[in-house]
Amino acid sequence: MQLVEVQKKNFDDYRQFIDEETEFELDFLVQKLKDKKIAMINATAFGGGVAEKLHSLVPLMKAMGINIDWWTILGHEEFYNITKNFHNCLQGQEGVLPVSDVETYLKYNQMNASYMKDWEYDYIIIHDPQPAALIESRRKKKYEKWIWRCHIDTSSPNKEYWDFLYNYIVQYDAVIFTMHDYAKEGIEPGNITIITPSIDPLSIKNIPLKKEEAEAIICKFGVDTNRPLISQVSRFDPWKDPLGVIDAYKIVKKDFPSVQLALVGSMAYDDPEGWDYLYSTLRRAGEDYDIKVVTNFNGISDLEVNAFQTASDIILQKSLREGFGLTVAESLWKGTPVIGGNVGGIKLQIEDGVTGYMVNTVEECAEKILTLLRNPVLAEEMKEAAREKVRKEFLVTKNIQVYLRLFYNLGFTAKNPAPW
Amino acid sequence: MQLVEVQKKNFDDYRQFIDEETEFELDFLVQKLKDKKIAMINATAFGGGVAEKLHSLVPLMKAMGINIDWWTILGHEEFYNITKNFHNCLQGQEGVLPVSDVETYLKYNQMNASYMKDWEYDYIIIHDPQPAALIESRRKKKYEKWIWRCHIDTSSPNKEYWDFLYNYIVQYDAVIFTMHDYAKEGIEPGNITIITPSIDPLSIKNIPLKKEEAEAIICKFGVDTNRPLISQVSRFDPWKDPLGVIDAYKIVKKDFPSVQLALVGSMAYDDPEGWDYLYSTLRRAGEDYDIKVVTNFNGISDLEVNAFQTASDIILQKSLREGFGLTVAESLWKGTPVIGGNVGGIKLQIEDGVTGYMVNTVEECAEKILTLLRNPVLAEEMKEAAREKVRKEFLVTKNIQVYLRLFYNLGFTAKNPAPW
Repeated sequence: MQLVEVQKKNFDDYRQFIDEETEFELDFLVQKLKDKKIAMINATAFGGGVAEKLHSLVPLMKAMGINIDWWTILGHEEFYNITKNFHNCLQGQEGVLPVSDVETYLKYNQMNASYMKDWEYDYIIIHDPQPAALIESRRKKKYEKWIWRCHIDTSSPNKEYWDFLYNYIVQYDAVIFTMHDYAKEGIEPGNITIITPSIDPLSIKNIPLKKEEAEAIICKFGVDTNRPLISQVSRFDPWKDPLGVIDAYKIVKKDFPSVQLALVGSMAYDDPEGWDYLYSTLRRAGEDYDIKVVTNFNGISDLEVNAFQTASDIILQKSLREGFGLTVAESLWKGTPVIGGNVGGIKLQIEDGVTGYMVNTVEECAEKILTLLRNPVLAEEMKEAAREKVRKEFLVTKNIQVYLRLFYNLGFTAKNPAPW
Repeated sequence: MQLVEVQKKNFDDYRQFIDEETEFELDFLVQKLKDKKIAMINATAFGGGVAEKLHSLVPLMKAMGINIDWWTILGHEEFYNITKNFHNCLQGQEGVLPVSDVETYLKYNQMNASYMKDWEYDYIIIHDPQPAALIESRRKKKYEKWIWRCHIDTSSPNKEYWDFLYNYIVQYDAVIFTMHDYAKEGIEPGNITIITPSIDPLSIKNIPLKKEEAEAIICKFGVDTNRPLISQVSRFDPWKDPLGVIDAYKIVKKDFPSVQLALVGSMAYDDPEGWDYLYSTLRRAGEDYDIKVVTNFNGISDLEVNAFQTASDIILQKSLREGFGLTVAESLWKGTPVIGGNVGGIKLQIEDGVTGYMVNTVEECAEKILTLLRNPVLAEEMKEAAREKVRKEFLVTKNIQVYLRLFYNLGFTAKNPAPW
């Protein structure tokens, strides 16, 4: 086990994003939890969405006065190969769980559990499958509350892997999923908490950019900022339907020839399928250079994503299948209307006709794009509703509020009941 | 300085590639040089073309009975950043040479020279600019012969950098360039040797593949091996003209609809311009999937390059500017006719009408492709001439022969003249 050092944050910077009622509740919860010690445990301090979230959550909780530490488990390559496979199988990859993998998995969990001998934490939050078996290897102390936080899309998991993990999950006092659809059957509903993904409004990806700043950045990618721009920020894979996005753009282009399209994506160099799909996307785009295709390999990073989300007239997230779709919240937060696929977590974020539109087909997508391009007033009206929706439900402050409520509620027992 | 361990090779495996006369000469030279000690010095043992060549050259020379060691110089990031810039400027990049860079460059050369104090080598061959100033830092012993081997395309160098390097080059007993055009004015012609790049016929990229093996490999990239295939193996940059290749293919396609085109390239993930040009290439290709675009990011490595060069009906190297163009020799060696741009080193390799064709325009390229596709007998006839040309001039055995001749000739002085 290794303690992670986090960069300090100032909670006062975030007070602007919460209303009075929430502020009051947060102050109350912090007061109630001030003598409690909390440990977050995950697999890695850098790389991946979980680490990114913890780098925002942990220092903010510390800044609020919560006594919280963040630990990462230690392992070798064999362990990480196995847990990577766990991850894929929990997301639905087929395959049988080898006995030797189980042994290796447990060996590293036992090894890490031995570091916890002298620990004195009241709440131990375990993130994802890698450290999930720690709960069995450690002789759980009576006052300890263990919470398992699942960040994975487990809506259609490989049953064998999910069942194996279930042996450990049932030992936890509480389980957190991102969406109701991801919760495993058999877990008592009373033990399930839902915490959706959230955005940090002061991170580089979401910090407010002036229109001119954002435009100056997207200009570098060949966008003509005097003409309308629609963008999709997304990986290049079939479920994000970039080909459908291009087809919708082509329909719009006939009626609205000044329109531009940007497909903004991130690529991993060890993901050959991702490259194949990027290549198909470029080939569908052909030599219409009003379609910009840009990735981290030619200059896209957090600030550039922010700029595209800020300076676009419309953001698309035309997914055919979607876990949550955090780019929707990111874009709504910038006041940009979003047209999204009528699937998964997108349905939680877009209020149809109020903060954007949900669509089922390429033709519908094209129609809604034209509606918004022809009615700038409508787009302007959506702005406030969009920001307010995100502020209330999808900011990191909301995330913290749900965590603290859970800690507080877990503190009550039959002998020490809740005061209401 | 660090000694590089190389994998053993057996020279007997290479005797099949040399004729009797050459074998006789090589035996003679090895005999004459058997008491001499030789050191190769370059910047790195892995990554880059120079290291690749030395991993082939050094063990082969050892196997022949030559007493040769390979050393790499040591340095830190600051040194390599500077010498990377040297490299780019020698290839023509503009910019002024900062005094601080000169100081750092000399500091590391002095440091490395101090390792050489007790060295007793008769021939010291320095590769490229990184260790070029060693000759000044070491007090050269009388019996030592120093040779500078330039692997860089210095046909239109940044003059300031080239002049700086010249201060060291003139101190060498001999200088080796890849082509006559790269030699610096001012160096005495008698001190210049030309060694073209060469291929190792037993490396994975060049080892003979059976037709069925090669076809099985390229099938995986979607090639229909029952239909004709033309390929270009090349980086995606304007000078390799992949867009011109696609245009030529499109002309051919009209008259010869079964034709397929493969653009096979290697990408570096830190080269944004390369990605931009790949994207343009894909967009020019559009959704004609008889055009295959494949890179190291979706499965291309040495064996796959070999397979494309072996199984294609025609290889293109339609460069608009070219240093040497080793893919031409690689393809000719496999008996595949090559149509190349009429530029640079390609002119040394293709005998027009005998081993392939040289072309100046897209239209000419299309015309020659059609000529070869319509006359399979012609292509078959070119096969032998192509292999023989490479065998005589561009195999690693030829490379060794020129090195040994040079060592031998440098051994003569006024007091100890050559025996002819």
